[in-house]
Amino acid sequence: MKDLRVGLIGCGFMGRTHSNAHRRLNNFFKLGHRSVLKAICDTNAAKASAFAETWGYERVETDWRKLMEAGDIDLVDICVPNFAHKEIAIAAAKAGKMVICEKPLALNVAEAREMVDAVEAAGVPNLVMFNYRRVPAITLARQLIDKGRIGRPFHFRAVFLQDWTISADVPQGGDALWRLDVKAAGSGVTGDLLAHNIDCALYLNGPITRVVARTETFVKERVHQLTGKVEPVGIDDACIFIAEFANGSLGVFESTRYARGHKALKTFEINGADGSLAFNLEEMEYLDYFQYAGSDSDTRGWRRIHVTNSEHPYMDKYWVPGLVIGYEHSFLNTLADFVAGIESGSPAQPNFRTALQTQKVCEAVLQSAKTGQWTETGVEL
Amino acid sequence: MKDLRVGLIGCGFMGRTHSNAHRRLNNFFKLGHRSVLKAICDTNAAKASAFAETWGYERVETDWRKLMEAGDIDLVDICVPNFAHKEIAIAAAKAGKMVICEKPLALNVAEAREMVDAVEAAGVPNLVMFNYRRVPAITLARQLIDKGRIGRPFHFRAVFLQDWTISADVPQGGDALWRLDVKAAGSGVTGDLLAHNIDCALYLNGPITRVVARTETFVKERVHQLTGKVEPVGIDDACIFIAEFANGSLGVFESTRYARGHKALKTFEINGADGSLAFNLEEMEYLDYFQYAGSDSDTRGWRRIHVTNSEHPYMDKYWVPGLVIGYEHSFLNTLADFVAGIESGSPAQPNFRTALQTQKVCEAVLQSAKTGQWTETGVEL
Amino acid sequence: MKDLRVGLIGCGFMGRTHSNAHRRLNNFFKLGHRSVLKAICDTNAAKASAFAETWGYERVETDWRKLMEAGDIDLVDICVPNFAHKEIAIAAAKAGKMVICEKPLALNVAEAREMVDAVEAAGVPNLVMFNYRRVPAITLARQLIDKGRIGRPFHFRAVFLQDWTISADVPQGGDALWRLDVKAAGSGVTGDLLAHNIDCALYLNGPITRVVARTETFVKERVHQLTGKVEPVGIDDACIFIAEFANGSLGVFESTRYARGHKALKTFEINGADGSLAFNLEEMEYLDYFQYAGSDSDTRGWRRIHVTNSEHPYMDKYWVPGLVIGYEHSFLNTLADFVAGIESGSPAQPNFRTALQTQKVCEAVLQSAKTGQWTETGVEL
Amino acid sequence: MKDLRVGLIGCGFMGRTHSNAHRRLNNFFKLGHRSVLKAICDTNAAKASAFAETWGYERVETDWRKLMEAGDIDLVDICVPNFAHKEIAIAAAKAGKMVICEKPLALNVAEAREMVDAVEAAGVPNLVMFNYRRVPAITLARQLIDKGRIGRPFHFRAVFLQDWTISADVPQGGDALWRLDVKAAGSGVTGDLLAHNIDCALYLNGPITRVVARTETFVKERVHQLTGKVEPVGIDDACIFIAEFANGSLGVFESTRYARGHKALKTFEINGADGSLAFNLEEMEYLDYFQYAGSDSDTRGWRRIHVTNSEHPYMDKYWVPGLVIGYEHSFLNTLADFVAGIESGSPAQPNFRTALQTQKVCEAVLQSAKTGQWTETGVEL
Repeated sequence: MKDLRVGLIGCGFMGRTHSNAHRRLNNFFKLGHRSVLKAICDTNAAKASAFAETWGYERVETDWRKLMEAGDIDLVDICVPNFAHKEIAIAAAKAGKMVICEKPLALNVAEAREMVDAVEAAGVPNLVMFNYRRVPAITLARQLIDKGRIGRPFHFRAVFLQDWTISADVPQGGDALWRLDVKAAGSGVTGDLLAHNIDCALYLNGPITRVVARTETFVKERVHQLTGKVEPVGIDDACIFIAEFANGSLGVFESTRYARGHKALKTFEINGADGSLAFNLEEMEYLDYFQYAGSDSDTRGWRRIHVTNSEHPYMDKYWVPGLVIGYEHSFLNTLADFVAGIESGSPAQPNFRTALQTQKVCEAVLQSAKTGQWTETGVEL
Repeated sequence: MKDLRVGLIGCGFMGRTHSNAHRRLNNFFKLGHRSVLKAICDTNAAKASAFAETWGYERVETDWRKLMEAGDIDLVDICVPNFAHKEIAIAAAKAGKMVICEKPLALNVAEAREMVDAVEAAGVPNLVMFNYRRVPAITLARQLIDKGRIGRPFHFRAVFLQDWTISADVPQGGDALWRLDVKAAGSGVTGDLLAHNIDCALYLNGPITRVVARTETFVKERVHQLTGKVEPVGIDDACIFIAEFANGSLGVFESTRYARGHKALKTFEINGADGSLAFNLEEMEYLDYFQYAGSDSDTRGWRRIHVTNSEHPYMDKYWVPGLVIGYEHSFLNTLADFVAGIESGSPAQPNFRTALQTQKVCEAVLQSAKTGQWTETGVEL
Repeated sequence: MKDLRVGLIGCGFMGRTHSNAHRRLNNFFKLGHRSVLKAICDTNAAKASAFAETWGYERVETDWRKLMEAGDIDLVDICVPNFAHKEIAIAAAKAGKMVICEKPLALNVAEAREMVDAVEAAGVPNLVMFNYRRVPAITLARQLIDKGRIGRPFHFRAVFLQDWTISADVPQGGDALWRLDVKAAGSGVTGDLLAHNIDCALYLNGPITRVVARTETFVKERVHQLTGKVEPVGIDDACIFIAEFANGSLGVFESTRYARGHKALKTFEINGADGSLAFNLEEMEYLDYFQYAGSDSDTRGWRRIHVTNSEHPYMDKYWVPGLVIGYEHSFLNTLADFVAGIESGSPAQPNFRTALQTQKVCEAVLQSAKTGQWTETGVEL
Repeated sequence: MKDLRVGLIGCGFMGRTHSNAHRRLNNFFKLGHRSVLKAICDTNAAKASAFAETWGYERVETDWRKLMEAGDIDLVDICVPNFAHKEIAIAAAKAGKMVICEKPLALNVAEAREMVDAVEAAGVPNLVMFNYRRVPAITLARQLIDKGRIGRPFHFRAVFLQDWTISADVPQGGDALWRLDVKAAGSGVTGDLLAHNIDCALYLNGPITRVVARTETFVKERVHQLTGKVEPVGIDDACIFIAEFANGSLGVFESTRYARGHKALKTFEINGADGSLAFNLEEMEYLDYFQYAGSDSDTRGWRRIHVTNSEHPYMDKYWVPGLVIGYEHSFLNTLADFVAGIESGSPAQPNFRTALQTQKVCEAVLQSAKTGQWTETGVEL
């Protein structure tokens, strides 16, 4: 059993989800490595100390560069706001560290390319935390597609709906609200939420080649927490786009933080000639499946698969059939696959290069929203 | 095309549902008979006249005995409160008329036996309007059971939940509220609601042999509309019973008019070794089916069959796949089968004899509720 | 009580739904007019005769022009394929008949304008049968919006998904399949299905000003039933569009006949600052409502309103709470409102002029799909 | 920060759920104690060692008596089969250790009384792990009831349905299957599953005073894993009972391991004059609530509360609104409350005395199933 010595940067929400995954890894997965929480880093020292206490990190840093120089760190786990991903990831790669980076990979395609180049030049294992691929129901969807259960695909549709920024009184920027600050986040729902849906789409239905998009910013000005002043809002509050997939199917995507009544309604549905699949994150224990080919006409129906059997992806690691796991386990499953990938030499996906494709789609979407034109994504086919 | 000349008695809610079935019969079903609305009868002449105008009856009667003597009536359709079923049905049989009778057949088993004897002695076609058997989803359930899709049955459970009598201000007795008057209705939820569930149970899972029951009357006194006085309430507001079926499976039934939030939650679920089926009247377009035998372990799930395909029972008579029919069509389907049964010589069920079995179970349930003891139903096996 | 003497043209699926509405009108609605089925017209004489027998029409015509000349016809009800709407409607208007026309109003905006001009010049009552406005749940949605329950609207999304043309063996054209023949139908899912969604959107959320659209024809050639030859398919099998509403909200619409597992999944959801509403035709007895304003934070949730109470639109006309009506009743409710509108002088909507707005949106959608550009709809604001 | 030094006995499924709770306690809850995994005990040394490695226990024991003598154990956590609860718990109490015991408390009421006496005599903190009380949705149900939201209760109904023992080839007894061995388990579904439902019922609706029950053993003989022989099955495969609550409401409970299609369908529904509440463990993120009092008649409906807001019980400890937690967190929440109870001096429930009431109901149920008679539970009122 080898130690996998982790240095994690960023004590926000994602810092917690990643720390939890590291802490629980060896309770549930049989691996050749043990996750060891060596160092936590945050510019806010008090926050970092409290975080270290809560999660059991051995030491605290306030300058992430220290982690790069440290001899006792094998893996750098990047949980800071998007604007800082590039610099840290490239430094980590140059220091020969493995890198896990929160999504989206970067602020834009240009940054993302540099990051891909850096990890590939350094030859270090790398992963972007598009955690939803490892929700068991979504992994099962992919397995069923691979088995040919849906046949020729015609349609893919996905939404990611929230409602937490409807009030004009919500400020932008700063600690918990950097996602509303375009400088820190790069974009609004496109990079934050649609990036997840695009990653799932690529995973389940292959490359997206062209898009036409419309974005909207419903609240035009908000107080900025860092300046204390009312400032223009630079992010997209909502984004809708139509997509062409390389396989000839059509896609439609929508995300917003103004859909009253939805907190994390991340869905997809894929329709093929032989069957269809649908998912909803708010009840993530289910995968809905309509089997056409090979079914009797009088008993066809959407079936709700309660994805908690030991045959289902990852579920043999947890409890017994019928008992659900939650959101956080998607991070744990991803981390386990990352470590298994290091051990097997068959890297887990999405690595930086794969996540670059999602970045390209996001950028084309934002570009199309500006020009009003259909826009090529330029993804690798 | 022969005329089937109808004399219908009772202008209440059931008078409307039966009249609607007669009026629409030949718009949807190809039969050798045409339903002709000859006479409507109600003791309230004004009500009967208005009803005749609305539904197109040719004439009005206020004494049901006139229908027995009439030469132009082939079928007597009984839609009056329960207490009057027996006398009318027996008279109709003696007059050689076909008889359709609203459920429950009678106030009690003794009455029901007399009625069975009368129609059998007269040799007239007879039917009790347990309409729910012909909700397409329920008929489909029976077809699937007949095909062996659920295998050895272990469990049957059913509820019929309403909430319209919670207020102590609801009076009992009289026109629309005779169901709360024990003299008119014979019992409360047992005869009104559980009779439906029991009929479905017999239809889907065979005879019930023994029961133990508990009834409750939550509101002990109500104003009686006929007397204007506060009188004790004689009906059961709620009834729960455990049942043994002849096939070795266990049943549990519950009905109440005190289940806040439910207006007509009539359900059943049957669990067998090879599959399960479930239904809910409030969304009657669905049958839920869990296929175990012959299914793959990773894609098993409850499937919602949207029972609107042309392959589904009765649905080829109506619109196109995906478009739902409603409550009233269960009466229409039943009437069509009754007429087809006359024509084919293979009578539609449940006839009076079959409905007598349901009456026996109801009586055993009420008896058990009084004694607290397990009680034999005495049904035919 | 006056007679409303009906001449109906077209014995297909819509001929049945309209005939059923006429037949049942006076059983359920108290009106000053009685619907009288005077004449049925179809170019196929045998089909028309059988139809007359089934539905009780007094006479049969094979040339619709006869109805225009007839002195005993008050209302012309047009149930023929789209291509023939214009000529018949204009002739009827000129003959001073009231006109009910199946949707979509016409093949295109130019035709629709002519029809509007004709009925307005003649001053005859006119209606386009966008029946779904009178599904009780949808009417209730409108009532709640009118009461201010959703507040400032941000999003409207709607789909209409079917799966009946996936097989390349389905032919186009002819009796039941004219919807696949571009000459008869004008377009594919846009005019057939999205027209319904657009009408609902206008009803609930006001005018659509700009759109960008993408259509697809998945099966490029099909046997034509009239010629017996394989011919190119001219219709859109699928259509997706993004919309801007005049009120500042964003819309997204999708329709296809290639969504395996959906037979008539017509939905909408509208999100406002103070609440949201959602509907699904496959379970049309429900309206889903999320109340934000005025609700407690710990018990907020999407509520499923079982739209079967007597307080709910139209439901006092039918049975008792909890018992559902079906698809066909939306036609009946619409017809009742049309007749009531004649009597009150306050015409029911959507009349031809209102339906012209939907036609404009459809045309802009099809235009945008060709050019790839955002396209103005030119609707009246 | 004090250490809470844990000695846990039993390396089965429950050993895992409790260990996980201890491991994660201080990651999510701010408490004055830190859970320290001192010793794991199992008669199977190899199993215990592997378990210690996985979960991080400091040492391994194979005789639970060692824990009683150990000076470094503050809390004994009992995760062994039911038959061994009593001896261990009493020894722990006598040794002055705090005790957490898996449910059901004991094989029968007599044992349970001895255990209550022991912990009360010793004055040690004690808890029975009826974990479902701390599913956030169930805790929220209790809060709403306490606020008077459902008013006078009329009905309580609950099921716990599984399907894992339908095959006659499943053996009984031994490691993972001791729940099928009456000597190890005391009873079948009554003690295993209904005990959970009864505990929830007592928590939400108060004492149960009388019951009438029916049990069934569908498979009469199974191979016993310890003897290798076919032996009679002594447990109840299924159990249904009707209950009277002290508050005048009626209850009905059903549990079985023969309900094909259900893996852990643990539900309850409670109906009161002013509202109703319903829950289903298979989608435990929801609480369904029907508000009657204070709601508008046209928008009443069952609302699905997605119990993931920070206002909801325990949810401020985890992620952000919309993101679900799972089964295991109910153990964690319970442990946190137990520790908080030690610190505050206000003990968490259900302690042994409270769990004794559930044991009494179970015993009355099993007794009634034998005699066929209504049976008093003798619970404290």
